[in-house]
Amino acid sequence: MSNTALGVDIGGTNIKFGLVSRSGEIIASEIESTPRSTPELSIAIICDLLTDFLENQDYSFDNLNAIGIGFPGSIEHPGGIVRSAPNLPGWGGVELGKLFRENLGREVRIDNDANLAALAEYKWGNGQGEDPLILFTLGTGVGGGIIVGGKILRGVWGGAAEIGHHTIETNGRICGCNNRGCLEVYVGTKGVATRAWELLERDKGSLLWEMMGGEFDSLDAEMVGMAAKDGDRTALIVADEVVKYLGVGVANIINIFNPACVLFAGGMTEWGDKMLLDPVKKETRKRALKTHYKACRIDFAKGGLWSGVLGAAALAFQPE
Amino acid sequence: MSNTALGVDIGGTNIKFGLVSRSGEIIASEIESTPRSTPELSIAIICDLLTDFLENQDYSFDNLNAIGIGFPGSIEHPGGIVRSAPNLPGWGGVELGKLFRENLGREVRIDNDANLAALAEYKWGNGQGEDPLILFTLGTGVGGGIIVGGKILRGVWGGAAEIGHHTIETNGRICGCNNRGCLEVYVGTKGVATRAWELLERDKGSLLWEMMGGEFDSLDAEMVGMAAKDGDRTALIVADEVVKYLGVGVANIINIFNPACVLFAGGMTEWGDKMLLDPVKKETRKRALKTHYKACRIDFAKGGLWSGVLGAAALAFQPE
Repeated sequence: MSNTALGVDIGGTNIKFGLVSRSGEIIASEIESTPRSTPELSIAIICDLLTDFLENQDYSFDNLNAIGIGFPGSIEHPGGIVRSAPNLPGWGGVELGKLFRENLGREVRIDNDANLAALAEYKWGNGQGEDPLILFTLGTGVGGGIIVGGKILRGVWGGAAEIGHHTIETNGRICGCNNRGCLEVYVGTKGVATRAWELLERDKGSLLWEMMGGEFDSLDAEMVGMAAKDGDRTALIVADEVVKYLGVGVANIINIFNPACVLFAGGMTEWGDKMLLDPVKKETRKRALKTHYKACRIDFAKGGLWSGVLGAAALAFQPE
Repeated sequence: MSNTALGVDIGGTNIKFGLVSRSGEIIASEIESTPRSTPELSIAIICDLLTDFLENQDYSFDNLNAIGIGFPGSIEHPGGIVRSAPNLPGWGGVELGKLFRENLGREVRIDNDANLAALAEYKWGNGQGEDPLILFTLGTGVGGGIIVGGKILRGVWGGAAEIGHHTIETNGRICGCNNRGCLEVYVGTKGVATRAWELLERDKGSLLWEMMGGEFDSLDAEMVGMAAKDGDRTALIVADEVVKYLGVGVANIINIFNPACVLFAGGMTEWGDKMLLDPVKKETRKRALKTHYKACRIDFAKGGLWSGVLGAAALAFQPE
């Protein structure tokens, strides 16, 4: 058995792949645009890319330990069927596992990208061996990945770790998932913008107006973070609310899992220590059970451009 | 290796123990009062009771597969130290594992009683092999046990599954744990009574007044359930709110774990199908992700007087 795995990170825009050693070193890597054909044809194209890549590295599939693939959507386990793929329209129901197997003539392991990002942190990132480990991905949506007993917590069909869709306000705002008061409603990029708009009506001098420059759709969490760093009143109010809500969500997860480590990844981590990490910790400490809070390290994920590839390779290396 | 385990269920009032076969059959059992001495002496007394019990059954410790013990409190893993024991004052910090080992001269396995109740359901109860399985214990407190990958989810030191202490109302009522808006605040017996009192001020004709018979401390969830079954207006309002809140909590757990099975145990299960199970399912269906709700069976636990002993025996039989 070789000590090298192929990690493939399929994204809505790009596909990244790399040869990864058992110690998490990326030996060779490549980025290509995600094919825009039908899922079947796209997978055939991806498999050609992978074959060429390996040949260029003087590798064959037989030299590999295994192949791991990360996909931006819900993946059914076992079987590797796409249950939903918000960023890749038309991919719902696609038998990803079967198609990759047929095209490559090899077994592959497939999982959700957030699950694999959590696994990458656990194996080689900012939570090595810390178990349970919970990763929050803070972006347009709020998602995550959960590691328990060294493995991805998948649940009965692979849908676990929808931590953005747990209610923290029973009668709160409607979420995209149809539930009310989900964490994502308050902490996701859209939620942050919605709340900012409520306050902007009464703050015509806010920096946010200038930053948007007439493009009102551009208002997002990143912009709110930047304006808050510059001392903008409305942005500060919104940021303060957002991190408090995130603190509620983190405290909930800490009481439920008694984790060793909670990590944050995604665009909102740009808010940094002072605007995000420190105030979230403060709110979490107020809310979580003391014995549980003390046992848990809260920090940013190591992340990085190649964390998806690393996570996919980590999946390939998993014993199970 | 024998095919019989000794299961011990230490409660605030009684201690139950039994010889349990690998198929979950109770071969012999006994109930005694929980000793009221110091923890050290109480454990010595319990160990004498166990030794006598085995002798009466013509068993020796050497004939046993293993010994499992359930305890009503947080237990540190590994090590078996009591972190907190609300129903057994003075037991905090006690090295349960060490003391039992010294007294019996044998290895023992110890866990929290709610965790073991979940394990009993998973092995021999109303959720056999259903993984993940989540048990909600609905009583004075709201607690639970979580089975993932056939094992108790313990977290980093054994404190996992505090599902009653997750916030469902960010600015809600203060909980006994100092957090705000915990599920327990709305669904625990005290929370139910608190809400009933708010409404009783304006409903002097409520059946609940009669049921209390002047003993105002006696108002609890069971009484509210009985009055609601008899059509009492205030009790019906309270019951309706309680099951909605419980539905929120169940939907949260379903989205986070994607479980195969959610079960309810504890005093509030007396409310039955119509008052508890059916309306909770209805609220959960409205809130949980559709794919997750469909994959999850929601039902009452098998439970029973001996479920604690069965859970302790199940722990003893665990491979790990």
